[in-house]
Amino acid sequence: MDSTEVEAEAAAEWTRAECERLDHEDPLSVHRARFRLPPGLIYLDGNSLGPLPAGTQARVSAAIAHEWGTGLIGSWNNAGWIDLPQRVGAKIASLVGAGDDEVIAADSTSINLFKVLAAALQLRPDRRVILSERGNFPTDLYIAQGLIAMLGNGYRLELAGRDELEHLLTSDAMRDDVAVTMLTQVDYRDGSRLDIARVTALAHAAGSVIVWDLAHSAGAFPVDLNGARADFAVGCGYKYLNGGPGAPAFLFVAREHQGRFQQPLSGWMGHARPFEFVPEYAAAQGVSRYLCGTPSVLALTALEEGLDVLIGTQAHGGLAALEAKAARLTQCFIDLVEDDCAGFGMTLVTPREPQRRGNQVSFAMPDGDQAHAVVQALIARGVVGDFRAPHILRFGFAPLYLRLVDAWDAAEHLAEVLQTREWDQPRFLHRQAVT
Amino acid sequence: MDSTEVEAEAAAEWTRAECERLDHEDPLSVHRARFRLPPGLIYLDGNSLGPLPAGTQARVSAAIAHEWGTGLIGSWNNAGWIDLPQRVGAKIASLVGAGDDEVIAADSTSINLFKVLAAALQLRPDRRVILSERGNFPTDLYIAQGLIAMLGNGYRLELAGRDELEHLLTSDAMRDDVAVTMLTQVDYRDGSRLDIARVTALAHAAGSVIVWDLAHSAGAFPVDLNGARADFAVGCGYKYLNGGPGAPAFLFVAREHQGRFQQPLSGWMGHARPFEFVPEYAAAQGVSRYLCGTPSVLALTALEEGLDVLIGTQAHGGLAALEAKAARLTQCFIDLVEDDCAGFGMTLVTPREPQRRGNQVSFAMPDGDQAHAVVQALIARGVVGDFRAPHILRFGFAPLYLRLVDAWDAAEHLAEVLQTREWDQPRFLHRQAVT
Repeated sequence: MDSTEVEAEAAAEWTRAECERLDHEDPLSVHRARFRLPPGLIYLDGNSLGPLPAGTQARVSAAIAHEWGTGLIGSWNNAGWIDLPQRVGAKIASLVGAGDDEVIAADSTSINLFKVLAAALQLRPDRRVILSERGNFPTDLYIAQGLIAMLGNGYRLELAGRDELEHLLTSDAMRDDVAVTMLTQVDYRDGSRLDIARVTALAHAAGSVIVWDLAHSAGAFPVDLNGARADFAVGCGYKYLNGGPGAPAFLFVAREHQGRFQQPLSGWMGHARPFEFVPEYAAAQGVSRYLCGTPSVLALTALEEGLDVLIGTQAHGGLAALEAKAARLTQCFIDLVEDDCAGFGMTLVTPREPQRRGNQVSFAMPDGDQAHAVVQALIARGVVGDFRAPHILRFGFAPLYLRLVDAWDAAEHLAEVLQTREWDQPRFLHRQAVT
Repeated sequence: MDSTEVEAEAAAEWTRAECERLDHEDPLSVHRARFRLPPGLIYLDGNSLGPLPAGTQARVSAAIAHEWGTGLIGSWNNAGWIDLPQRVGAKIASLVGAGDDEVIAADSTSINLFKVLAAALQLRPDRRVILSERGNFPTDLYIAQGLIAMLGNGYRLELAGRDELEHLLTSDAMRDDVAVTMLTQVDYRDGSRLDIARVTALAHAAGSVIVWDLAHSAGAFPVDLNGARADFAVGCGYKYLNGGPGAPAFLFVAREHQGRFQQPLSGWMGHARPFEFVPEYAAAQGVSRYLCGTPSVLALTALEEGLDVLIGTQAHGGLAALEAKAARLTQCFIDLVEDDCAGFGMTLVTPREPQRRGNQVSFAMPDGDQAHAVVQALIARGVVGDFRAPHILRFGFAPLYLRLVDAWDAAEHLAEVLQTREWDQPRFLHRQAVT
């Protein structure tokens, strides 16, 4: 009996009482108290913006009042500000299977992607293609387009569907010209998850370097970059790392590549001796050469608190336990929605096998306006998921602070919204400019 | 009688009582209370890291607790997070003579410089030289070097001394090949200030585009980018704007250039319709196309408080009044040091004419180790200036929160440190890795 059958068997048995019982037995449940979740809200959008850890406000306040206010400029040394990108990076490294000296926290995901893509292309000077997915998160594609426009010289971006990737990587057509394969492990729309080890091996067999975007992976489930022999990675601080809105992002450079190239955003924080103020750039040793300008201390401080919460789960099994819990949360929600909402045109687009999805469940509806309105009606009830064009309802199940009863209640709300056509009101059908 | 003579005449008359009297009469003195300055400390390093505004802690705490904690993902719309780069940018615009729609707050100075340099080079496709100063702040040179290394194609960086600039810009040798002149208005070491209108006109006459770094200008004295017909500018949020350690930086793009080029860091926040999630980049209209990834909301919130303090001085004459006060503060310090510390090898390297210097006074000493130790001995006394290699003692006089008695007392401390050889101790002579 494989895990799919286990889950299928369990499906018939969901009751709210059973959810409560399982929540009560869950050793990870204590970590919910480390977040300030608004009472009564079911927050299924932590894959877009993680909620506020209980300790962040005090920690940032202390950094403002004591480190900045009292320590002033001396805090670059005395409060360790100068090492924040490396210190926070090492904590992220522990979540993604990297060495302490392979990750830094800095800048945004987009900017970090520019740095590592530019470096990655230098590893394959005779090749001209960046291979990615048509459905990749757009900013990744935009950054590749900006880089290519700047480089000229025959560089191009080739896009494939997720289901075509393996074929392409093993076909003769692409083998000789793919310099870099750039992929996001978990698709932001459908929640499907790629096997990093397998795809990295295929990319390497095709002679390509690989760049992973771990936006929906880091802090969500175990990732083993070094186990997979990945070359480069980037990721986001404000989703499963709970670092706050627009938190600094991170980047990973495998040790073997660190000394080989200078990335183009060669600002003073990546200099070997920034405080000697010499006019010629000389790249720092190690991953620190991927730093650019002065990082936001307040933003990094908030991110560090989010990481400490995650790292605090190690006594209860850490990311492996969180992954198992997320599989159960998402399975519960899938089962209930497919049961309770049958006949309303909801089609599961997230893979059914738990190990093939991230901590996310997405349904498509035939009509995009209706899908959008259903999400808005749920938000009005205090069930916060989000809509992704053209017609996706997206629900994130971060196992760090969510319970099975949340999945149960969310499914119930969704069924009621559909059964009563509560969504069919101008205030829900009107689309806002943002989200 | 020119202003130099006025100042020279006043020099003989400084007494502490006179300083107190002038401070008492100063209408700007009320703004000192809008900062949390450690009691007894004389902080002359606001040109490196501005001190903590009194309102920042509460403002950031509210953003954390209410906007993030309670509002969660909805705050991108409901708390106006999505417009922060433009809203904060418009406040900065009011300080640098730019239109509301010409400035955004985002990323770091280094990264913003990469964006505008790349765009500026596209304005002069037949030219290959970036002209800058040998003594420019190193990160500016490093970024130009990184950009050029990436572009290849004959691009090069030419460096001149500050005193050679005007000659170079008017010489036939450079006229035909300078694409971009990249200058920092106030030299971070000697505090000398360039006339933006004059140098911009020379650069334009030579057929060059100009990029200004306003790191030590914005918030320090009036700047009129549009009056000077400047093309591009960048600047720092954590010096005279008091936005906190590593605060977001800003960039200015003159309206006429905004629609002409796509900058290479083409992330989703600079897309015309970021929430349509289309795979092809399409640059936003206006300066917003210079955004890249998701900005830190907490860091921008802290910066906005710093800006509100500065903008709050408008009833007392704003930047023009602050400039006049800074001229008096720096003159007082220069006069007193030259009087009290004569014979100790201190040489003023900052220009004597107030309009030719920023809010900063720098002295050189023959021996770099001694200069460093003197700065450390002053810090131990609670007079915080800084050392800049190879042999500069640097004192910033931010007129927003400093008093003439601070300049008086700082000069007295300096004289005592020199007269008693207090600096000549291992704890002061030992150089830390960072400052």
